[in-house]
Amino acid sequence: MSKKSALHISKGVEDAPSINPRLRVQGKSSLGAEELLAGIRSGDLAALAQGITLVESSAVKDREQARVLLSGALKFSGNALRIGVSGVPGVGKSTFLEHYGVRLLEREPEARVAVLAVDPSSSKNHGSILGDKTRMVDLGKHSRAFIRPSASGGALGGVARATKEAMILCEAAGFTHVFVETVGVGQSETLVAQLVDCFLFLAMPGTGDELQGIKKGIMEMADVIAMNKSEGQRRAAAERSALEIKRALQLFVKGHEEWITPVTLISGLEGEGFEELAQDLERYERHHKIKGLFERKRAEQRLFWFERSLSEGLDRLLAGMESWNTAKAALREQVASGALSPFEAGEVLLERVRRNF
Amino acid sequence: MSKKSALHISKGVEDAPSINPRLRVQGKSSLGAEELLAGIRSGDLAALAQGITLVESSAVKDREQARVLLSGALKFSGNALRIGVSGVPGVGKSTFLEHYGVRLLEREPEARVAVLAVDPSSSKNHGSILGDKTRMVDLGKHSRAFIRPSASGGALGGVARATKEAMILCEAAGFTHVFVETVGVGQSETLVAQLVDCFLFLAMPGTGDELQGIKKGIMEMADVIAMNKSEGQRRAAAERSALEIKRALQLFVKGHEEWITPVTLISGLEGEGFEELAQDLERYERHHKIKGLFERKRAEQRLFWFERSLSEGLDRLLAGMESWNTAKAALREQVASGALSPFEAGEVLLERVRRNF
Repeated sequence: MSKKSALHISKGVEDAPSINPRLRVQGKSSLGAEELLAGIRSGDLAALAQGITLVESSAVKDREQARVLLSGALKFSGNALRIGVSGVPGVGKSTFLEHYGVRLLEREPEARVAVLAVDPSSSKNHGSILGDKTRMVDLGKHSRAFIRPSASGGALGGVARATKEAMILCEAAGFTHVFVETVGVGQSETLVAQLVDCFLFLAMPGTGDELQGIKKGIMEMADVIAMNKSEGQRRAAAERSALEIKRALQLFVKGHEEWITPVTLISGLEGEGFEELAQDLERYERHHKIKGLFERKRAEQRLFWFERSLSEGLDRLLAGMESWNTAKAALREQVASGALSPFEAGEVLLERVRRNF
Repeated sequence: MSKKSALHISKGVEDAPSINPRLRVQGKSSLGAEELLAGIRSGDLAALAQGITLVESSAVKDREQARVLLSGALKFSGNALRIGVSGVPGVGKSTFLEHYGVRLLEREPEARVAVLAVDPSSSKNHGSILGDKTRMVDLGKHSRAFIRPSASGGALGGVARATKEAMILCEAAGFTHVFVETVGVGQSETLVAQLVDCFLFLAMPGTGDELQGIKKGIMEMADVIAMNKSEGQRRAAAERSALEIKRALQLFVKGHEEWITPVTLISGLEGEGFEELAQDLERYERHHKIKGLFERKRAEQRLFWFERSLSEGLDRLLAGMESWNTAKAALREQVASGALSPFEAGEVLLERVRRNF
């Protein structure tokens, strides 16, 4: 996380008129889970930031505190609309979120906007794609906004978990809109789709060739598409590109939701088309709530994360046993070369577990 | 499996000139794994059928024999081109395979064609979508063809495994082309894609609305597309539909293979466009072999099945413990309702395993 982003967050806190000053968290003093929860519930953004740091922590001493905090926050969560935002690098996700967030806050006086970022790349190079830029200055200053770059990296599963837990805390803090921004590369989108109610995909105008930047799998996940950078001279090209995407989407059925993914022209820079996009998102929410799909999707997502954390946990547990690792690595080599059937190799390894039980 | 199909297979055996009569398997007498392998290697189709029945068997007494057979066959496998064939029910997969298979055998005197079917539905109703029809009469009669409907059902993973192992035996028997037919519904395509070198998707001409029958995920998997039923009066509609699909495909990048999925017009009934399609498939094979992608894909598939059989095996192992099941079911309920965090629930359950190790 860059210093600049931290600055924006604290600015947000200083400007915030609605915070109970008695609950404001001072400096880095570490509060107990109950105090943190009270601070978060009262709308104290510093408490929220500290709470997120706590749940992101992998230190053993923090895990129990984090558990208490989360299980306390869970019953106050679930009321926000969770929106994933994706698109290739350079499509203008940050600019869009900055301006769209500010507009949303102006449009809806009760709205509170949180932006979380999933950026698994930050684990590799100790910097981060997201942290490299000055980001969302105006939104970050707003008293009803909260911006949080990605957790400290680690495996993608870990980043997704941290984001999910940060989302719970944001909801307990009363945020009405939680945006989850992805870096638009790699596998992060698949997991983000399991975190959000609605997946917003940002595209850019271009010729067929340029549009090829769209990855099939991501397009499949898109619930709402916004053709960004549609301002001025690009307008005609944007209209053509939107039409092309609409035609392509027609060919592909999106589950049994009877939802046709809308494609709206916007300019993240100039704020054009924001009203239409806001309506697309509202229509999506309404459509899915009426059909009961909204809550069903959330229940399925919860079970997805349960199964996933189980299987990742089992993997970790087995990976902690050296004899298992050695045996597995040797078998993988034989399997990859075709010398041993994958199924037979699987059974050889399972026999080990069976003997251990 | 229908009686008719069994008949075709035995007819094929009777017509086959290349079989060593001394090795011909008599009736249902059960041979040892070594004898079966010798029969399979000599081209005896009855031995091949019996071998597949053996590897499909879930009886404990058969597992060791099956293991010996497979591990013997493995070193003779890998030389066929493995082609998955999918498309919505009614698109004409069987008619296509029947006529295309016969044409392929006429075109290439050295070719030997096996057709395996993946039909997970057969487990549900003790009948099978595939078995309901009279299928591939002409191809079934051919001495260089072998047709095998799906295994006895069970979980999709089990069906896929049985198909993978049947494929190994077919390859050991010297088949040069193994077609894996899916029923075109459900999740079977995803697994079939992990079994084959090339995924052929059959589409039908229609208006945009009718084309919507295409599921996004399947389209994404398609390596080669054939627009079936393009004969006579449907020709113009087929050309329009093919163009529409090509336009849609342009928008979606297919990995880093630099392969553009071709769309060819065919008539499975009248054999039109078969030469072009054969060239598409050959071009696909050549392209991927030159780039080293062919063998890499196979190695990745082997590791996929290894990991999958491991995780399925672990699931089975845990599911066999009643206390685990009871605890997991209770936790799932709490997770689905949102009362408990999915991650916390996962940890509760993992703690059980940890104590067992």
